[in-house]
Amino acid sequence: MKKIVALAFMAASLMANSLIDDAKNAGLKAIPESPSELLKLIDNPKNPITKAKVKLGKKLYFDPRLSKSGLISCNTCHNLSKGGDDGMQAAIGHKWTANPHHLSSPTVYNAVFNDKQFWDGRSPDLEDQAQGPIQATPEMAATPEHVVKTVTSMPAYVKEFKEAYGYDVKITFKKIADTIGTFERTLVTPAPFDAFMNGHEDAMTKEQKEGLKTFIQVGCASCHNGIGVGGSMGAMNVTAKYKYMNVGDFKGDKNGMVKVPTLRNVTETAPYFHNGMVLTLQDAIKEMGRIQLGTKITDKQAKSIETFLGALEGKKPYIKLPMLPATNDNTPKPVVK
Amino acid sequence: MKKIVALAFMAASLMANSLIDDAKNAGLKAIPESPSELLKLIDNPKNPITKAKVKLGKKLYFDPRLSKSGLISCNTCHNLSKGGDDGMQAAIGHKWTANPHHLSSPTVYNAVFNDKQFWDGRSPDLEDQAQGPIQATPEMAATPEHVVKTVTSMPAYVKEFKEAYGYDVKITFKKIADTIGTFERTLVTPAPFDAFMNGHEDAMTKEQKEGLKTFIQVGCASCHNGIGVGGSMGAMNVTAKYKYMNVGDFKGDKNGMVKVPTLRNVTETAPYFHNGMVLTLQDAIKEMGRIQLGTKITDKQAKSIETFLGALEGKKPYIKLPMLPATNDNTPKPVVK
Repeated sequence: MKKIVALAFMAASLMANSLIDDAKNAGLKAIPESPSELLKLIDNPKNPITKAKVKLGKKLYFDPRLSKSGLISCNTCHNLSKGGDDGMQAAIGHKWTANPHHLSSPTVYNAVFNDKQFWDGRSPDLEDQAQGPIQATPEMAATPEHVVKTVTSMPAYVKEFKEAYGYDVKITFKKIADTIGTFERTLVTPAPFDAFMNGHEDAMTKEQKEGLKTFIQVGCASCHNGIGVGGSMGAMNVTAKYKYMNVGDFKGDKNGMVKVPTLRNVTETAPYFHNGMVLTLQDAIKEMGRIQLGTKITDKQAKSIETFLGALEGKKPYIKLPMLPATNDNTPKPVVK
Repeated sequence: MKKIVALAFMAASLMANSLIDDAKNAGLKAIPESPSELLKLIDNPKNPITKAKVKLGKKLYFDPRLSKSGLISCNTCHNLSKGGDDGMQAAIGHKWTANPHHLSSPTVYNAVFNDKQFWDGRSPDLEDQAQGPIQATPEMAATPEHVVKTVTSMPAYVKEFKEAYGYDVKITFKKIADTIGTFERTLVTPAPFDAFMNGHEDAMTKEQKEGLKTFIQVGCASCHNGIGVGGSMGAMNVTAKYKYMNVGDFKGDKNGMVKVPTLRNVTETAPYFHNGMVLTLQDAIKEMGRIQLGTKITDKQAKSIETFLGALEGKKPYIKLPMLPATNDNTPKPVVK
């Protein structure tokens, strides 16, 4: 009896190992368990992560006064309480303007693992990306001058900048965006998938493992791979065959490529695709099979893949709501028009 | 020498005591240090505070899906990171609509100490108040049905409701608002003023104590009194003589009365007055002297009072950013139009 149990255990173990191997061979990678290994992956040598920067960057991320209106913060569209995005089809910004290209806000969680940022990959990293929405007229609509003046007006911010960058620091728009980017680098959410890939076989359910198999067999991992389970610039021109390609005028990068979004926390970030036109995950899975893999994904397969995607729902970092320094007479006034 | 020190100490102590007595005689009260005493003050016998309700109420407070657009939460206008309000002159809501009466969002911190809620005092308590902005067209613009359907669509919310109210609970709009109100009751911010009034003489600086004296002597405490240092329905018709009374059509309650706002955290909640037309605290202090007390408050007095108001800047409760349950196919979709 003991022998049979032991054999069954070995067989199960081998099966699990072979699934881990299959996943690795398909290009999937886990978030490492070792903090130092993880730090190496998320750090930016040109703007190293420090506690002081993260602390300040978190405040700036939540501060709506960086926007022209004083109403919109990074967290408005990349809501850390809501899977890191806003749940909208097209993002809504300054003066209630919908994104002119009908683009949906991607999640900020695990965005550090993206090869490039923005749907067309025009930005190399989070520090650079953070400069975009702050200035975009239909988003936060601020000028760099407004942002610098706002931050510099508050002694508590100036003090934190000095603590983060040194006492002779000049507060620039770039440095403000850098600091926000640093905070965003820490927004990593390890999931049952990672525990499984790191050798904890029980971290995923039997059904999730079946889903992972289907995910690999169908070919999803040919684009959704790496630590981000996505995040590269795509292997095909998605707009060519995408059912809703005419919603919005977004045409991808210069090669017509659209960034492959991370599938981490995808169960929390409906609606789907760059223009948010697909409302459910199963529809998104099937549409991807049709246009990217040239295959008809069955209901059963879609459901199985969806079950696996649940194993990518990660543990969110513990975030204490920051208390922001008070506005004073030198702080630029909100302009809502 | 020892004798002199002892005498000086006694004299200082007597002076401090006499200032505390003066403040008490002027109707000012401290937030009690004893948690059980405080709980008695903030509790609602008809909707008792429980851990489960506070936990759920906090999530609902931060959930923008309670609004029609899916973009506006209670925290949008009553931002807990920013002194509990939005820093706007007139609140901005659904479709970027400014408050039609040009009313400014009051702080939610310590709002539990208000005798009544809203600028015209039309609501008796926070539970009742919470129903208002959710439904108001220029604010969250939701119907009670939308709110109930949204909350009920998410199993994690249903579970928390059962944990909070019992397993046969029916999720109603009233109960949702009640739960938000319960969370808001906990948003109390003890300040140096309270420590001083509770006998810790060194909790306020010499200048703040001087400011408190001026505050009492000038007559500010005739309206700004009680634990809220404000919060009652006013002793005068403020709109009659207020410099900016013509900005917006707000005329107060049926007697023309405007609620006296709390002065707790007032250093963090510019701009001032019901229509947000006074930008600085010193101007607000002088305008109040002119229209409410019929006295010219000097620059020196205004500055001294402002210094005292700094002692009302309280310690904010530790708030862990809540993680909200994921939207699913049954959750009403955002409507931004």
